[in-house]
Amino acid sequence: MTFMVESDADTTVDEVDAIVEAAAAAAGPWAASEPVDRARMLDGIADRLDAHAAELIPLAMRETHLAEPRLAGELKRTSFQLRLFAQQVLDGGFLDVRIDGADADWPMGAPRPDLRRMNIPLGPVLNFAASNFPFAFSVPGGDTASALAAGCPVIVKGNPGHPALSRAVGRLIDEAIAECGAPGGTFGLIFGRAAGVQALTHPAVAAVAFTGSTAGGRALYDLACRRPVPIPFYGELGSINPVFVTADAAQSRATEIAEGLLTAVSSSAGQLCTKPGLVAVPEGSPVPAELARTAPVPTGEMLNDAIAAGFARAVEQVRSHPEVRVLAGGGPGEALLLATTARTVLADRDALMHEMFGPATLLVSYRDTAELLALARSVHGELTVSVFGDHADDTTRALLAAAAGTAGRVLWNAWPTGLSVTYAQQHGGPYPASTAPSATSVGTAAIMRFLRPVAFQSVPEELLPPQLRTENPLGVPRSVNGARAQ
Amino acid sequence: MTFMVESDADTTVDEVDAIVEAAAAAAGPWAASEPVDRARMLDGIADRLDAHAAELIPLAMRETHLAEPRLAGELKRTSFQLRLFAQQVLDGGFLDVRIDGADADWPMGAPRPDLRRMNIPLGPVLNFAASNFPFAFSVPGGDTASALAAGCPVIVKGNPGHPALSRAVGRLIDEAIAECGAPGGTFGLIFGRAAGVQALTHPAVAAVAFTGSTAGGRALYDLACRRPVPIPFYGELGSINPVFVTADAAQSRATEIAEGLLTAVSSSAGQLCTKPGLVAVPEGSPVPAELARTAPVPTGEMLNDAIAAGFARAVEQVRSHPEVRVLAGGGPGEALLLATTARTVLADRDALMHEMFGPATLLVSYRDTAELLALARSVHGELTVSVFGDHADDTTRALLAAAAGTAGRVLWNAWPTGLSVTYAQQHGGPYPASTAPSATSVGTAAIMRFLRPVAFQSVPEELLPPQLRTENPLGVPRSVNGARAQ
Repeated sequence: MTFMVESDADTTVDEVDAIVEAAAAAAGPWAASEPVDRARMLDGIADRLDAHAAELIPLAMRETHLAEPRLAGELKRTSFQLRLFAQQVLDGGFLDVRIDGADADWPMGAPRPDLRRMNIPLGPVLNFAASNFPFAFSVPGGDTASALAAGCPVIVKGNPGHPALSRAVGRLIDEAIAECGAPGGTFGLIFGRAAGVQALTHPAVAAVAFTGSTAGGRALYDLACRRPVPIPFYGELGSINPVFVTADAAQSRATEIAEGLLTAVSSSAGQLCTKPGLVAVPEGSPVPAELARTAPVPTGEMLNDAIAAGFARAVEQVRSHPEVRVLAGGGPGEALLLATTARTVLADRDALMHEMFGPATLLVSYRDTAELLALARSVHGELTVSVFGDHADDTTRALLAAAAGTAGRVLWNAWPTGLSVTYAQQHGGPYPASTAPSATSVGTAAIMRFLRPVAFQSVPEELLPPQLRTENPLGVPRSVNGARAQ
Repeated sequence: MTFMVESDADTTVDEVDAIVEAAAAAAGPWAASEPVDRARMLDGIADRLDAHAAELIPLAMRETHLAEPRLAGELKRTSFQLRLFAQQVLDGGFLDVRIDGADADWPMGAPRPDLRRMNIPLGPVLNFAASNFPFAFSVPGGDTASALAAGCPVIVKGNPGHPALSRAVGRLIDEAIAECGAPGGTFGLIFGRAAGVQALTHPAVAAVAFTGSTAGGRALYDLACRRPVPIPFYGELGSINPVFVTADAAQSRATEIAEGLLTAVSSSAGQLCTKPGLVAVPEGSPVPAELARTAPVPTGEMLNDAIAAGFARAVEQVRSHPEVRVLAGGGPGEALLLATTARTVLADRDALMHEMFGPATLLVSYRDTAELLALARSVHGELTVSVFGDHADDTTRALLAAAAGTAGRVLWNAWPTGLSVTYAQQHGGPYPASTAPSATSVGTAAIMRFLRPVAFQSVPEELLPPQLRTENPLGVPRSVNGARAQ
């Protein structure tokens, strides 16, 4: 990041070239870094974030209008995430080491040679930072942490919503890199749409991570696919995060569900990729009345004018539908609750299952179980689908099956907005939730996006990477002849 | 495959629609099939291939001109491969089950909910069969076996080079499917370029596997990316499979290397995706003389006229270069050995590092170690790179590092044409070797291409898939709270 620009200007063509070339030059040394050094660098970034919280949080507040407690929690989550990836580096499980000894009697019909396989880093990763999590999905976020952990240099295309914070965090990352002796090109930061496109199409960039809108993400995905050498594009795009409430649950827990929904829709001014944007409840249930009773619910200010304008346009598309009415809210700084029927949504799916990125949701009333299931089965690719129910019965089983068929995460009696960073987390899903349904952008499996396997055939011990040597000097988990071994 | 066409005609538009819709209808039941039933179906296909070898092999010989021993070996490999995937289904490791218990003290700063994650099938897979392995990379080959093992219905776009064999094998697969009670749509077979494109762009198809030429594969990849809902495209395209021979090895083992090379170039008439197409030897080494002494080496007849014409065009592109000369062979039914210098290749990389799919290779002489390393570092994405050396020294280390940086499989003193089906195998690599560098099309990891993870949050035991229940009734391998457990 030697070339980091301190002004508000977009990164120039020459600067982008220099940053990408520095990343390309750093790729070999960083891929070859010792696990302890790589982990120390990730821990070093986490330590610096924590140590500088008192400066970073006010800066984030100014640039994003998010509240202090939310940003403090996000910063803690971000440094935790960096340390979790440092642990993964030391563990080595992500290398997926597989060793097949030579076997003259291998039943394939020909002797099996000695084959040893492990994952290696893909190369420089370009990371388009999100607007709504200035720490956790931005410069020091999960994409950066997992790519660095994989052994890839990272170039972050900073989000225009929080440039000063991005630069401040970038300086801390540079310090951590320098401390562990890695090349400066291991991390770079660029700004501007044209700079992002230039980096995306640079031959040295090997993979892309993106979190943002469906339209913006799809345009970049298309560019990645059209390169002479296409590269993996891990895009987390839009999601409605539908919630299906059974008749039982709507009756027995109407107040609790209404309160939970209002919190999920209004917190962080609804600017969460997992905000529930469609909630199906039975006709005549007490839920709408409970909602109307509690509303209007205040929300914070939105991230910036561009996000607010996009939200207004998306809301207008849904609200202007002749069969949609306002249930409550929608004044300045208030969450907006819209309402319609399942019949209307099923008849006009694309207009009404439409992401409104901000504090709004669409309450959908269904007449019977058949209509509820038809609605659940009409959903396209989603990050999350939630089911509220009281029992394991045919309806809840069918709802959960439909949910698993369309979403990366399926919740039971829980709201999707809390996204835990864990080993089993999955943040992704079929398109448009993600452009890569087999990948996750949150949780320890996120590291797998930036690796590719290499098999070494008949290579003698002294020429093998240490992770593949029989003596296993680094103690990495591995499978030997198809069986898990330590 | 109820709709399978018995004539030579291409599958019609209506037939393709019916086959894809049958696959979509089969997706749910096949995904929900018990592991024992799924394994029994794969074993059933293998048993039928073995039982019908006496009819299938002569049919394959007529349609492909490949020799009986080669086809007998390929059939054995193919049934072995199906049984290996049946074992994977029973093992369940590919599900990558991860269980995080609820943890109120999770250090992220917020309580961790109960999260349980496993891989589920993507849905119907379209498999473009290859010309050169009428069993192992065709209707009953690795893509079909791994997709069925993953729980995905498979539609094979049959290769036009062996339609009768494809249909005969398709009938055996249908029998195996019927025997295990799976829906008929679990397997479909279509013919014709237009039919393939129609299936590729059908909304119900969820992923594509392809083995073939770079031009053909890239065109289909582009179509997959441009769909309204893009889908993963696992294409194995072209590869040169360069071989780098050190000065030591060229001196000490010239005869052995020359013989090995001639076998690798001429067997199966050079129609192997792993045929070595460029071999670097030191200037003045005895290898060219050894080659010239042994040549001309007879090759079998080529697969078909289209392949022969493509080979002739590719050879002409290389041979017509003013700095390329014929070293030996090239008459009808003979392997062709071309020769040039490393300097020439480095000056005109794209013209000379050009796949010649057939019995030809380009011998490249280098002047010194610097030129050898420059050549090794100029290589683009490859399935394999081989290094022949006598010692672990700076040169061989640098060659192996360059090889790992560009290829999916790295060989030491071995020819790349034998491709073992094992746990640690990797058949893929950076583009154009593969359109998905993190995937393999051979070996047990090939199953991972057709899966996506789903995380279940706070779902009670009785509503979870059995693989995610605490008691682990199916005994699948899993990790619990980040640690491997049984």
